[in-house]
Amino acid sequence: MKATGKAPGKGHVLALSGGVGGAKLAAGLAAILPPERLTIVVNTGDDFEHLGLTICPDIDSVIYALAGLNDRLRGWGLADESWQALGMLKTLGEADWFRLGDRDLATHIVRSWRLREGESLSRVTARLAAGLRLAHAVVPMSDTPLRTQVETAEGWMDFQRYFVAEQCRPAVRGIRFAGKAEMAPGFAEALARDDLAAVVICPSNPFLSVDPILAVGGVRDALAGLAIPKLAVSPLIGGKAIKGPLGKLLGELGAGMGNDAIATHYGRLLSHLVIDHADAEDAPDLRARGLGVTVTDTMMHNAADQQRLAHDVLAIAQIDSAG
Amino acid sequence: MKATGKAPGKGHVLALSGGVGGAKLAAGLAAILPPERLTIVVNTGDDFEHLGLTICPDIDSVIYALAGLNDRLRGWGLADESWQALGMLKTLGEADWFRLGDRDLATHIVRSWRLREGESLSRVTARLAAGLRLAHAVVPMSDTPLRTQVETAEGWMDFQRYFVAEQCRPAVRGIRFAGKAEMAPGFAEALARDDLAAVVICPSNPFLSVDPILAVGGVRDALAGLAIPKLAVSPLIGGKAIKGPLGKLLGELGAGMGNDAIATHYGRLLSHLVIDHADAEDAPDLRARGLGVTVTDTMMHNAADQQRLAHDVLAIAQIDSAG
Repeated sequence: MKATGKAPGKGHVLALSGGVGGAKLAAGLAAILPPERLTIVVNTGDDFEHLGLTICPDIDSVIYALAGLNDRLRGWGLADESWQALGMLKTLGEADWFRLGDRDLATHIVRSWRLREGESLSRVTARLAAGLRLAHAVVPMSDTPLRTQVETAEGWMDFQRYFVAEQCRPAVRGIRFAGKAEMAPGFAEALARDDLAAVVICPSNPFLSVDPILAVGGVRDALAGLAIPKLAVSPLIGGKAIKGPLGKLLGELGAGMGNDAIATHYGRLLSHLVIDHADAEDAPDLRARGLGVTVTDTMMHNAADQQRLAHDVLAIAQIDSAG
Repeated sequence: MKATGKAPGKGHVLALSGGVGGAKLAAGLAAILPPERLTIVVNTGDDFEHLGLTICPDIDSVIYALAGLNDRLRGWGLADESWQALGMLKTLGEADWFRLGDRDLATHIVRSWRLREGESLSRVTARLAAGLRLAHAVVPMSDTPLRTQVETAEGWMDFQRYFVAEQCRPAVRGIRFAGKAEMAPGFAEALARDDLAAVVICPSNPFLSVDPILAVGGVRDALAGLAIPKLAVSPLIGGKAIKGPLGKLLGELGAGMGNDAIATHYGRLLSHLVIDHADAEDAPDLRARGLGVTVTDTMMHNAADQQRLAHDVLAIAQIDSAG
């Protein structure tokens, strides 16, 4: 077990995030922590190639949310988006199941081009973040692909096919992460920091968005070796996922129900679980497992909600948010 | 010398085209000739890579014009275009000197992807043309790159850099076509047809848009060996180019002035030159060279103009436009 080297009050925070839900808390943390005290590591298991473009849905969700450019009503992609290119792609007979917005396309074009030119995904992500005037470090979990795939009655399929084209309709029998990935340099560096004071697992799907990060070589061991608060914000409210297939998945995978299933899934990696008021009744059983439990309002409608929840999380870890 | 095998009245027409000006006559020919009687070969010397996209400006001008999707006011690109992606590219710190429209981007994305997947430029061009519901054959001059470069006081530069980024400002000392290109299959097949009845050089810049086609291996010899009408429509009106750097180039290259320079440039490849009423005074000198000369209205404002000029051209070659 490694002890934190400096006073926890001003320590560094490592946030692990999937897409939309996780991006909201990541944006809240970025709003209240100075850049040198936050590293946001993002799931890349959903990344895929489409029409020759490398698309990283969770990285885009995080950088757009941090830049305040995300579309809150639609729940994904950029605000003030248009769909002219997509219409032309359809005219040209190309697949249109993945909704490429015109502004969003610029991100994919730059990323795809720079990757082909030999830049690492870390470097390209930093470039895109800089272009959006982000000061905080947004780091892909790995510079090498690790593809999330789900097993259905028709066999294994890539995550985006399941999630977007099939709209999560097929029952999931299993999940795997194809490939062998090493931590991106920024991820390994954050884990090795003497002043690392907390790990925050953002409210993303544990099976589909957080597990790929944990599946990267060395991550589980590194997390297990950290004697610092390791918190997760539950993605459930009232026992259900706000968005996405988590509720359906828990049943299909026989993983149990509600926050108990979340706690079981993360096991000893977690010291603390943050749950919503709507699930306050889960608290005694969770505490009986030896978990710290905080009951608060986890729904994030706007930037104020994001920052409030980020403050709650830092308070649990006894971390000061003042720069 | 090869004789035409069939009655010229119903023969096949091979049109050689550059971008905007040439595309207008190509569209006129396509409007009055059935698909099996026209092959449009397009300059690819201006093709270039930009942000990882393969852009073929002249092919796009031709397929957009044939589809009736070209923007007539702007003079290039698609009508009803938007520029959302370009704005985002600029935000992300990428070069924005080449104006990528949102709908136009779809064309570049499909082409770039399919080329990387191993399709030939001929196949990709046919795919794009089919997507736009074109029935006529649009064929790149070659499936291998031949890059037009111009020599200026600062040395050699790629054509698009000169044409778009530098807006043709530098004085041109020389022009070269870098690379070694073979005719695309559809080009060679059209030249070898027994029923080939005319070659039409569309009103494009002879130095920058037509010369690259003539520089493709075997093209000059094949054209010289054809005993059929070989017509060019002059790109000059009143001694000046309607658009683009031709007038400036003629002076810089010391190539002479007006239609005399055009005739000198094409030399024995041409049997006939079509010139505008505004240049009627050029006719006697051109005829004295042994050229057939037709004076007509070569300005094309709209589809009716395009078809009228196409009819004029076919009449000269004694070709019936009825299917």
